[in-house]
Amino acid sequence: MEDKTVLLLISPSKIKKSMKIGDSIFDALIDMNIPIRSLCSGRGRCGHCKVQILEGAKILNYLTQTEHELLEPEEIDQGFRLACQTKISNGPGTITLALTERSIIHTQCLQLEGSTRDITLKPLLKKIFLKVPPPTLEDIRSDEERLLQILHKQSGIESEELSIKFDVKIKLSEILRCSKWEVTVVLWENQVISIENGDTTDHIYGIACDLGSTKVAGYLIDLKTGAIMSQIAEMNKQVSCGEDIISRISYVINGNKSRLNHLQNLALSTINEIIKKCCEKTSISYEEIYEIVLVGNTCMQQLFLGIDPVYLSKAPYPPTLSRSLNLPSKLIGLNSNKNANLHIAPIIGGFVGGDCVAAILASGMLLSDEISICIDIGTNTEIVLGNNGGGNAVSCASGPAFEGMHIKYGIRAAPGAISSIKINSNDPDDIRIRTINNDKPIGLCGSAIVDIPAELLKAGIINEFGTYNRDLETELKRLRKGKTGLEYVIAWKKDTDLITDIVFSQADIREIQKAKAAIHTGAALLMDIMQCKEEDIDHVYLAGAFGCYINPESACLIGMYPEIPQKKIEFIGNAAGTGARFMILSKDQRNFSKIIQKKVKYYELATHPKFQEEYISSTLFPHKDLNRFPHSSTILKMNL
Amino acid sequence: MEDKTVLLLISPSKIKKSMKIGDSIFDALIDMNIPIRSLCSGRGRCGHCKVQILEGAKILNYLTQTEHELLEPEEIDQGFRLACQTKISNGPGTITLALTERSIIHTQCLQLEGSTRDITLKPLLKKIFLKVPPPTLEDIRSDEERLLQILHKQSGIESEELSIKFDVKIKLSEILRCSKWEVTVVLWENQVISIENGDTTDHIYGIACDLGSTKVAGYLIDLKTGAIMSQIAEMNKQVSCGEDIISRISYVINGNKSRLNHLQNLALSTINEIIKKCCEKTSISYEEIYEIVLVGNTCMQQLFLGIDPVYLSKAPYPPTLSRSLNLPSKLIGLNSNKNANLHIAPIIGGFVGGDCVAAILASGMLLSDEISICIDIGTNTEIVLGNNGGGNAVSCASGPAFEGMHIKYGIRAAPGAISSIKINSNDPDDIRIRTINNDKPIGLCGSAIVDIPAELLKAGIINEFGTYNRDLETELKRLRKGKTGLEYVIAWKKDTDLITDIVFSQADIREIQKAKAAIHTGAALLMDIMQCKEEDIDHVYLAGAFGCYINPESACLIGMYPEIPQKKIEFIGNAAGTGARFMILSKDQRNFSKIIQKKVKYYELATHPKFQEEYISSTLFPHKDLNRFPHSSTILKMNL
Repeated sequence: MEDKTVLLLISPSKIKKSMKIGDSIFDALIDMNIPIRSLCSGRGRCGHCKVQILEGAKILNYLTQTEHELLEPEEIDQGFRLACQTKISNGPGTITLALTERSIIHTQCLQLEGSTRDITLKPLLKKIFLKVPPPTLEDIRSDEERLLQILHKQSGIESEELSIKFDVKIKLSEILRCSKWEVTVVLWENQVISIENGDTTDHIYGIACDLGSTKVAGYLIDLKTGAIMSQIAEMNKQVSCGEDIISRISYVINGNKSRLNHLQNLALSTINEIIKKCCEKTSISYEEIYEIVLVGNTCMQQLFLGIDPVYLSKAPYPPTLSRSLNLPSKLIGLNSNKNANLHIAPIIGGFVGGDCVAAILASGMLLSDEISICIDIGTNTEIVLGNNGGGNAVSCASGPAFEGMHIKYGIRAAPGAISSIKINSNDPDDIRIRTINNDKPIGLCGSAIVDIPAELLKAGIINEFGTYNRDLETELKRLRKGKTGLEYVIAWKKDTDLITDIVFSQADIREIQKAKAAIHTGAALLMDIMQCKEEDIDHVYLAGAFGCYINPESACLIGMYPEIPQKKIEFIGNAAGTGARFMILSKDQRNFSKIIQKKVKYYELATHPKFQEEYISSTLFPHKDLNRFPHSSTILKMNL
Repeated sequence: MEDKTVLLLISPSKIKKSMKIGDSIFDALIDMNIPIRSLCSGRGRCGHCKVQILEGAKILNYLTQTEHELLEPEEIDQGFRLACQTKISNGPGTITLALTERSIIHTQCLQLEGSTRDITLKPLLKKIFLKVPPPTLEDIRSDEERLLQILHKQSGIESEELSIKFDVKIKLSEILRCSKWEVTVVLWENQVISIENGDTTDHIYGIACDLGSTKVAGYLIDLKTGAIMSQIAEMNKQVSCGEDIISRISYVINGNKSRLNHLQNLALSTINEIIKKCCEKTSISYEEIYEIVLVGNTCMQQLFLGIDPVYLSKAPYPPTLSRSLNLPSKLIGLNSNKNANLHIAPIIGGFVGGDCVAAILASGMLLSDEISICIDIGTNTEIVLGNNGGGNAVSCASGPAFEGMHIKYGIRAAPGAISSIKINSNDPDDIRIRTINNDKPIGLCGSAIVDIPAELLKAGIINEFGTYNRDLETELKRLRKGKTGLEYVIAWKKDTDLITDIVFSQADIREIQKAKAAIHTGAALLMDIMQCKEEDIDHVYLAGAFGCYINPESACLIGMYPEIPQKKIEFIGNAAGTGARFMILSKDQRNFSKIIQKKVKYYELATHPKFQEEYISSTLFPHKDLNRFPHSSTILKMNL
């Protein structure tokens, strides 16, 4: 039989893979761990998985209807196809393809820093150096007892409370003798999890990790000083199986159990790579890492533990777990000492997970009797309102629009992304843009995506319903008819690194309206159920990578969240990461995370009777009820 | 090259193995898991590993000096060799060998029953049937929380105290839905270790196991009723690597780490076989077994856990562990539910291990203010003296003489073993013997080994120093000169199933003297350090398989333990097994085992200043100080 194997080559990287007739390019890219963009998990809906066929088009299927709809004619001319639609139709042969900047998920400019309040260093993990008395005929205690009794004396922990991990017990006699009875015990809570030869009390490290659906941040912490030794952020490798949580859940549901394992392994491998880099930067070995604290949203935490997320996707969306948990890190396979503890933060409810608990912890909002609202903006936006008496939390499916997705030219905050825009109200064809790294523009990142509607509003190019003003089409060069309606040109092709203009379409504005309405609705209903007005709120904590870069003036003009004076707004950066650090640094903080979980009630937005009404009102710019946005109304010259 | 492989055949079983030049028969038998007898682990010292070469003698090495010393001329004539001395010297060829009754370690008539006191059923392991409310939009708790809250209501255990084992958490959502929210949780202490579909509360079982160095007893217990469903005893397969603890430790020390694993696996396989048989007898599946309680002496417990026993063999002999421990049974690999708990009993000190704690528990001696002495006779004899105020324990290396070893014709209590002897004092050539199963005699078991010196003493054939009366040699047919001195013929060849007479040699008497002196010394010094006289003791508990069959009159005459009126002596059988059952049946009993461990102090006999003196005095029959044996002295007509 003739060999019909087809060789797939990725240019210019030289990565290759053999394929057979019927195989899809999309599946092949996922198998190769190439982070191809996709919102629909390869179901031909989002049009993000563009690849350029350089060689071998003849052995592929013809362009599908979907591709004709989702690709621009220029793109088709240049050999672009959607990877999910493209299959091998005959062989043998070779396919060479190029991946463009926009078809690959890039490492973002990831937020690592977080503003912190001061906490007292009091880790659960301790090292204690001991000189253990060797056995004599007069002292015939077991090795276990002689170790625990001297440890009791030095730690002050009751001897009965102390224990030794089984793995350590097995080798205990040998360790004590090999180290000539001078050892350092590693104590986690009241359990000896490891024993080291000699005095190693100077070396005690932990990893705090914020496992986001898009980005993962890791901090290597010196538990003796509390210092951050190194910090690394990486894209979550799971992105190759779906850019948001819902697509990843679909990815699992539409396949077999091995897909759950695959997602678990991708998260694990992302974190292990972070730990590896943190250790390499500091010459610290895995063996010296004895604890890892991980926070993430409910779905991320469950996937990381290998829990099937299917039930999270079915009403009423109950999580499997909600309490915090500790388990041996080796059960999961993390780069660490083999006896290290892995701590997973508690979950509040729904998608409001350990990352939100950590953000609340970092903000300190539950420590004061002043009322605060914490908004952690992401693909899912978590909003918490409350004070030391307790609070409520909601999760809003704000979608990834502010992260550059669902927006035709949206990209993540990578070099070349347009990050801010000003439109000259007197001459709306005159605009100023700024890009990350001052590179030639390749797309729009979140902060620009907030700026654009605000600027279009101020210039009167769109109205409060977010609709382009048709009357200006002839007047303005930048406003024109596109394939799907009016669109505004942000950058002309000649000024970009793309083969097309960068435009902002009517559909893009609708996406922003949906996203900002989701967030504002969450905040407004939270305030409603807690009978709290804008003026009652003393602090607004804006968290999340994105939260740090947006122009709050623009956010306020589009009505992204309730209108509260800017002086009350505080950007707290990667608050989830900061909270994870607090948990590893202090037993009190970790205990407080459990109190947060108890004091903050999850509220399921969909059950609020005003949900639909509020959501629709919130789609207007800034809002249907202008009384709630007096400042923005004034600037936009709208009549109250 | 010529193939020099030699085939080893065991007759009549047809088991075979290929061997090569230089290989020893002893090692080959161990590899084949044949329980060949050996006290010296194949070092040519004990002479127990006799095999009869039926075919192929020419391809073996010549008889060694050791064999000429340890084998009888008749045995050499009939082709007997010591397996450890016999090696393949050339090949190819076939060796056929027969193993005699005496060269194989037989399953003894193993003691399973133990007298019990009444205890209240209150196992740590419980099953609770729950109807879990499914999630609704109004009840969006996590699956974890909804399960634990209803469990809290039904169990009365504080919700905060309850937890779920990690393995169960992972599958929790699926289990709840597959069982339509009607589940039975398996609760160990406050942890959910398993969840079963529907109501399975009627099926809850555990295994209590006494891991002896020679025999292993297992009990399958219905934890709902406390009933013993089945009980099985097997020889400990470790016996093939050494009959007593010291030989097994030597076996490990003289080899590499794989020997430790081998011993661990042999114990595991013995217990797994017991569980298998228990389950087969009752049609109970491994899945229904959720807890295993194991007791054994210190060395047995350590070997079972894979702890190197080397330090136990070096003064001052500290055990590695002494506290009780719980671990997942699957870590060891026991036949049970994969989430079952394995509980290992606490250790008192030295070789006084969990089996002794269990025996004390079974005896109830620490519950009363009356003073008791508990003697658990075995290769190591543990003695405990005390009352509810506490006690002391010692371990005596009494050796395996009473188990038939180190005694030329000693065997274990198997069919054909002589179990009791009476000598007619008026005609010491007239003796009456009884054998197990009334089979033709093949050797002497423990109870006979105690009877013989007592009878010889009464008949005046030996004196108080245990020395044969030379003057009687001409007078008595049964008293004659043997290879190593005088010997007394217990059974003539014609009446036995052997090819020699069954005799009791001067050396055998010396073995008994050493063994009984060890036990008496332990008891006497314990009484000395606690300033307790024979008359202060209210109860004597004799435990151990052997303890049940001996004639207490004979034991008293030879001075095996302090002379205490027979009415105070109680045989409590396999008390270790009974104690293990108590631990699985009752949380209170298990807690009490920890109190026993704290209240009973281990005393290292060797450090007692009178140890040597007392030991030498105790080698006399019944003792040097006849004032301590008034009753025996009267019967033996000795002058006080």
